[in-house]
Amino acid sequence: MRDVAELAERVAAGERRALARAITLVESRRADHRAAAEALLTALPVPEAVLRVGLSGTPGVGKSTFVESLGLMLTEAGERVAVLAVDPSSARSGGSILGDKTRMERLSRAPGAFIRPSPAVGRLGGVARRTREAAALCAAAGYGTVLIETVGVGQSEVEVGWMVDVFLLLLAPAGGDELQGVKRGIMEIADLVLVNKADGPLAPQAQRTCADYAGALRLLRKRPDDPEGFPKALTVSALEARGLAEAWDEVRRLVAWRRAKGWLASRRAEQARHWFREEVRQAIEDRLAGDDAHADRLTALEAAVAAGELPAARAAAQAVAPLFGDAGATGLDGGGDSD
Amino acid sequence: MRDVAELAERVAAGERRALARAITLVESRRADHRAAAEALLTALPVPEAVLRVGLSGTPGVGKSTFVESLGLMLTEAGERVAVLAVDPSSARSGGSILGDKTRMERLSRAPGAFIRPSPAVGRLGGVARRTREAAALCAAAGYGTVLIETVGVGQSEVEVGWMVDVFLLLLAPAGGDELQGVKRGIMEIADLVLVNKADGPLAPQAQRTCADYAGALRLLRKRPDDPEGFPKALTVSALEARGLAEAWDEVRRLVAWRRAKGWLASRRAEQARHWFREEVRQAIEDRLAGDDAHADRLTALEAAVAAGELPAARAAAQAVAPLFGDAGATGLDGGGDSD
Repeated sequence: MRDVAELAERVAAGERRALARAITLVESRRADHRAAAEALLTALPVPEAVLRVGLSGTPGVGKSTFVESLGLMLTEAGERVAVLAVDPSSARSGGSILGDKTRMERLSRAPGAFIRPSPAVGRLGGVARRTREAAALCAAAGYGTVLIETVGVGQSEVEVGWMVDVFLLLLAPAGGDELQGVKRGIMEIADLVLVNKADGPLAPQAQRTCADYAGALRLLRKRPDDPEGFPKALTVSALEARGLAEAWDEVRRLVAWRRAKGWLASRRAEQARHWFREEVRQAIEDRLAGDDAHADRLTALEAAVAAGELPAARAAAQAVAPLFGDAGATGLDGGGDSD
Repeated sequence: MRDVAELAERVAAGERRALARAITLVESRRADHRAAAEALLTALPVPEAVLRVGLSGTPGVGKSTFVESLGLMLTEAGERVAVLAVDPSSARSGGSILGDKTRMERLSRAPGAFIRPSPAVGRLGGVARRTREAAALCAAAGYGTVLIETVGVGQSEVEVGWMVDVFLLLLAPAGGDELQGVKRGIMEIADLVLVNKADGPLAPQAQRTCADYAGALRLLRKRPDDPEGFPKALTVSALEARGLAEAWDEVRRLVAWRRAKGWLASRRAEQARHWFREEVRQAIEDRLAGDDAHADRLTALEAAVAAGELPAARAAAQAVAPLFGDAGATGLDGGGDSD
């Protein structure tokens, strides 16, 4: 596999076009590409020093402006920043949250920045798994900060939570009782809640929203890897680039604390184990999905279970038995194995 | 399987000893018992009218007093109430949250009540799956309300959340900034937060805690199957049996709304599909765990992934390939499939 070795060398040397090609390779669903992608990832271990940051926020909250402002701040300080996106909706809608680079026009021209549109197609889990691999490639290419943005569809935040060191949630100023559509599970993984648009007439509202969330986070979140004072809520103005340096200082402080306490390493090891188990599960499911009789059986049995006609355990036994060559125990008759 | 048919008849007739024996059967790990348990469950469909209620709360919050007061209130009104427990810690500690029936002495003597100690042993997932089956048996035996209590260890709340219609979280009065150790994921599934001990000198504190959580729930929770005003926070005094009727009215109101809107049926169907998929996954894992070579391979590969020596996808491919009789792609050498 001479190509892979050469590509790995060029990625490690920080060549942007090689990195882009490498990401295309991990996103491909062709079997030979997958084998090459795995060889490539094996050849390019993730540097310990990388900082992987997840970012979520509902549409309209100012996410692109925030990413551009933050990215420019970091690249102007000499850092190299990669921005990736998880957008599971793009497969259906044809849209892409980063497909249009004009969304971050200034950042896309910065020499230290690498912006990657979301994959055009893919199953949800598949997109997330490949995004994690793309982030690993960016880290290997020398991007010290990898920002993984999610548009907040389905389980994407939770999946991104399993591939980053720190997670940011961007909110807009809102009335005390106004719901912001903060999705299931996000408050569990957010390390820093940033209330954006703390500028002009919305500034006082942003302060109040920030205080509301600070209180809610104190009540509802408790994790051993949260240092004193975290999770934290802050106000920022992405438009005026205010509060970003302070927010980033908090990110660094949090990561430094977790690194010193050993939480960063243990979190990364746990994440790696999580993805390994997911990959094993998915690999087995993919193999079994190729077995038409098995797939048909699963569909019929699941419908019977949902309709209350069969208990889950009995249906599962009937689904699995034929895979292991057991006699009997097939069909939907339920009670018929003896009497 | 004449025994099973007879046991099913006796359970359906509401015989307590038959129900206890049936639950012991579903808890057993012996293969012949499992087959009988599945036949039994197939013969005893869950009545639509049953109300399955999850309850969680940290130790010291007054959970047993609450369950006893609520159970007595319902049984005195002529209802039949079953209380089950999920206590994954009992396998390790030898303790059991319901093993000692004196904990709910009055309720255990009520003719309409059935109290079941937690299983003595079992893996976490296994305990939860069997608890769900025990709840189905209680429903089939004519217990109109099945209360599933969890002590709050590991993922037990989330698992119980997948087997109930309504979830209650019991809290103690606390200072505004005082953490109550509310665990990851609970706020996502709680429909009603009940601040207990709203009696004597703690009453004002309970009111304040209740207001804090009401505010936090408004900010952080949003689900399509929440009617206006839910999730809700209320104060109760389990000791003085005050607020319980009001809390139970809210439970009934919530369930009636979800039933009328079709959410109850769709939630139950989704739960059944969830457990079917879990059972299929577990059945495949159990079969594979019997393959020593596979188990050893998984252990070695997971360690290599956690140590950063191998990417997850490559390791998973190596783990799965031999199961399907593929040549090559074994061992930990990583890059050796060609070059």
